[in-house]
Amino acid sequence: MSHDNLGLVSTGTCVDMASLAEIADSLVRREISAQALIESARERAQAVTELNALAHADWPSALAEARRLDDEARQGHLRGPLHGIPVSIKDLFAVRGMPTAAGTRAPLHELDQDVARPGHEEAVLVARLRNAGAVLFAKTNMHEIALGATGENCWTGDVRNPFDPARQSGGSSSGAGVAVATGIGLAAIGSDTGGSVRIPAAFCGVTGFKPSFGAIPLAGALPLSWTCDHAGPLARSVADCALLFEVMAHRRVAQRMVPRRARLQVPTQWLAGRLASPIREVFERLLAALDERGAEIGRLETPRLASAWPCYTPIVRTEAAWVHRVALATGGKGFSDLVLPALRAGQTVLAGDYVDALKMREKIAAELDAALADCDALILPTSPVLPPLRGQLDVEVESGTMTTREAVLGQTLPFSLCGLPALSIPIGWVDGLPVGLQVVGRRNGDDALLAVGQWLEAVVGVAPRQPNCVSAT
Amino acid sequence: MSHDNLGLVSTGTCVDMASLAEIADSLVRREISAQALIESARERAQAVTELNALAHADWPSALAEARRLDDEARQGHLRGPLHGIPVSIKDLFAVRGMPTAAGTRAPLHELDQDVARPGHEEAVLVARLRNAGAVLFAKTNMHEIALGATGENCWTGDVRNPFDPARQSGGSSSGAGVAVATGIGLAAIGSDTGGSVRIPAAFCGVTGFKPSFGAIPLAGALPLSWTCDHAGPLARSVADCALLFEVMAHRRVAQRMVPRRARLQVPTQWLAGRLASPIREVFERLLAALDERGAEIGRLETPRLASAWPCYTPIVRTEAAWVHRVALATGGKGFSDLVLPALRAGQTVLAGDYVDALKMREKIAAELDAALADCDALILPTSPVLPPLRGQLDVEVESGTMTTREAVLGQTLPFSLCGLPALSIPIGWVDGLPVGLQVVGRRNGDDALLAVGQWLEAVVGVAPRQPNCVSAT
Repeated sequence: MSHDNLGLVSTGTCVDMASLAEIADSLVRREISAQALIESARERAQAVTELNALAHADWPSALAEARRLDDEARQGHLRGPLHGIPVSIKDLFAVRGMPTAAGTRAPLHELDQDVARPGHEEAVLVARLRNAGAVLFAKTNMHEIALGATGENCWTGDVRNPFDPARQSGGSSSGAGVAVATGIGLAAIGSDTGGSVRIPAAFCGVTGFKPSFGAIPLAGALPLSWTCDHAGPLARSVADCALLFEVMAHRRVAQRMVPRRARLQVPTQWLAGRLASPIREVFERLLAALDERGAEIGRLETPRLASAWPCYTPIVRTEAAWVHRVALATGGKGFSDLVLPALRAGQTVLAGDYVDALKMREKIAAELDAALADCDALILPTSPVLPPLRGQLDVEVESGTMTTREAVLGQTLPFSLCGLPALSIPIGWVDGLPVGLQVVGRRNGDDALLAVGQWLEAVVGVAPRQPNCVSAT
Repeated sequence: MSHDNLGLVSTGTCVDMASLAEIADSLVRREISAQALIESARERAQAVTELNALAHADWPSALAEARRLDDEARQGHLRGPLHGIPVSIKDLFAVRGMPTAAGTRAPLHELDQDVARPGHEEAVLVARLRNAGAVLFAKTNMHEIALGATGENCWTGDVRNPFDPARQSGGSSSGAGVAVATGIGLAAIGSDTGGSVRIPAAFCGVTGFKPSFGAIPLAGALPLSWTCDHAGPLARSVADCALLFEVMAHRRVAQRMVPRRARLQVPTQWLAGRLASPIREVFERLLAALDERGAEIGRLETPRLASAWPCYTPIVRTEAAWVHRVALATGGKGFSDLVLPALRAGQTVLAGDYVDALKMREKIAAELDAALADCDALILPTSPVLPPLRGQLDVEVESGTMTTREAVLGQTLPFSLCGLPALSIPIGWVDGLPVGLQVVGRRNGDDALLAVGQWLEAVVGVAPRQPNCVSAT
């Protein structure tokens, strides 16, 4: 495992090893500078341009802002807990002075409307990060309008996996995962409707956190499906995600004790046949390691989880088609063939089928709530397969062939559909590719989930690896 | 104005003049008996059978229950604030030991499912009334599945207006209005999705209260449109409605002071052309009287109110078709031609149009919330016309001809659509027919609205009249 430092030898601080809180402390003590962090992010970005993480970067402004923050720190003025920390933003959140394209060439009417509200020249969560001192240096590339999880995009070019550019980066917060994995900034903000924070986190070997529905305000974000949409951070540890969550949700995360004998549930029956064998092996080893560490591992019977997929599709397609109704009504120009058929399908959903899905969601959520009432968290692999090749439409799992979409999204979407908080934590490497563990908490139990996540990270997690493409530079 | 007593000469208590609280007190002091109240209700019911108020009555059980309550009162045991008060229940709430038909011959799958929940052998609000001591002696007739406001019903026969049986009773809580107007019990519980408590209250010359959305639980009630459905009382005064509301919502109503100079708003522009001239005259006299009493009358500009009607239809039709999906899928047998076309139309609504309507509702609600933030209540006639003849499809208003449905429902539905609390209070008589004033309060401002309602009732309200059909017996 390599821990190349960020090249900040002049300060002597090994940024790669440190938490955001420690780095912020170093900035205050002037052992490191915000300017150096931005310069490092720029160098990394230049070194890995072929991965295509960034949609837009404004390095001169970011450098100027970093210098301002360094000056302020010298004068003893700190804006907040992220003072001087470089954070990138997915290209569907409005950021002051930056364009928003959301990976499409179609016009974004809904976003304009949202951001046009007084006081919302940028998304609320972006303003909160800025107020906390973050340096918002770039927008990251994404799956077109967030409707997909592969990172493939014919308008911007594919976002590539940092551990094998022939492979998918995951999505839709594709560039966010790549940016964190390659050190283009120290954290990234993504959004997650069906898995769009957790999947790129897993595929890029970083940590992703999708909080409870409603915990982070979405004003100023382009909606995809307003009953499933969440914003969330991608970073290098659970603690970093917790800090970013505190800022974006505008509240303190209570420090929770994890029970000596953590009670974790696995949806064994639902996972049967769903996993590819390398993922199954990593997961089984993890369960054995948790057992040794004294965790109580239970099997969860969730017969309704199987309904999540047929329930998700009419909801997301209906709502996405409604969000983009003006562009669709005027011919749908600017949407690629990767998303247009789904949007067109969304225009033909019957209200009764949409309501059916909303009602079924309530039942799935009730089942999950009941299951989670009896344990500390639900655990399962974030993705049932290693990052597929770009363009790969099917994957092999234990039970045979599945579509890539159904395999990958199917494992994360039940929890955004139902609004439960969920983490993805790196737990292993297979053939140089990362494997992520999904940890799902109780509704609005974000603080407890983050505590369980930190415990899991400590006992079974693996440290982030530096992608070869970065080490090679 | 006649105030015939209920014939309870043996006790010397004039029940017709008294509030429910006073009658309950008289029951405690044994000046009157629960048995006598039930016997009186039965006599009234027998005297006005041609009005067709009741779907089901169980007089022997009610008498036995009344005697039990009298015995308990003698022993100093009181069940609650409605001890011994006879209350009828609309035939879409589940009541222990009574059938539920909801005015249709179609099977009611949704109700079965709801009431099948443990502990819900009857509707929650019904159990609360029973626990408070009410004698639940009958189910009242209604517009079929609550989808209509005239009280016409080919399965049960029309419910007729007590002041002119050739006229509509209003609906869908038709029998509830008639029962209260004719003394078949002292109060009735109805439901209101587009006006179904307020319209029969206005047409039958009694007081009706539709509380804020969600204030009274609906478990054990047949839904019509779960985003618009409300339960609410019909009674002989605002104070009686407040008492019944306290029991059903399971909370105390705070006593509020009405400001010395009550600020009332009239949606003048929206009402222009909508009223029939007799209603206009009564309303103008009322405004003059309020002005004399020191009220501040403002004009409300509500450009979005006009969107309530086109927004209501897709929501209610979609949701009603979903509620009755099993019966519709098996041929729709048992639904009359008065409701089947609307249900069938509900099956073809597109999800995008349903969402459009839900989103438009948010905007209308925001407009109403903003308007109500600046005043104590919104006032307007409950119905723009006097009770139409049964079978009458069109009515004359100032601007010409409107369909009866659009005229009558159009004036009440914006407030159930948006979930605002609203009262209908008797304010006058034209040609022996009653006129009601609708008073709309702030969202969740039920207590303040009830206070304004009591003040209005005192300064401009008219006492209930005994229908001729009753006086004649």
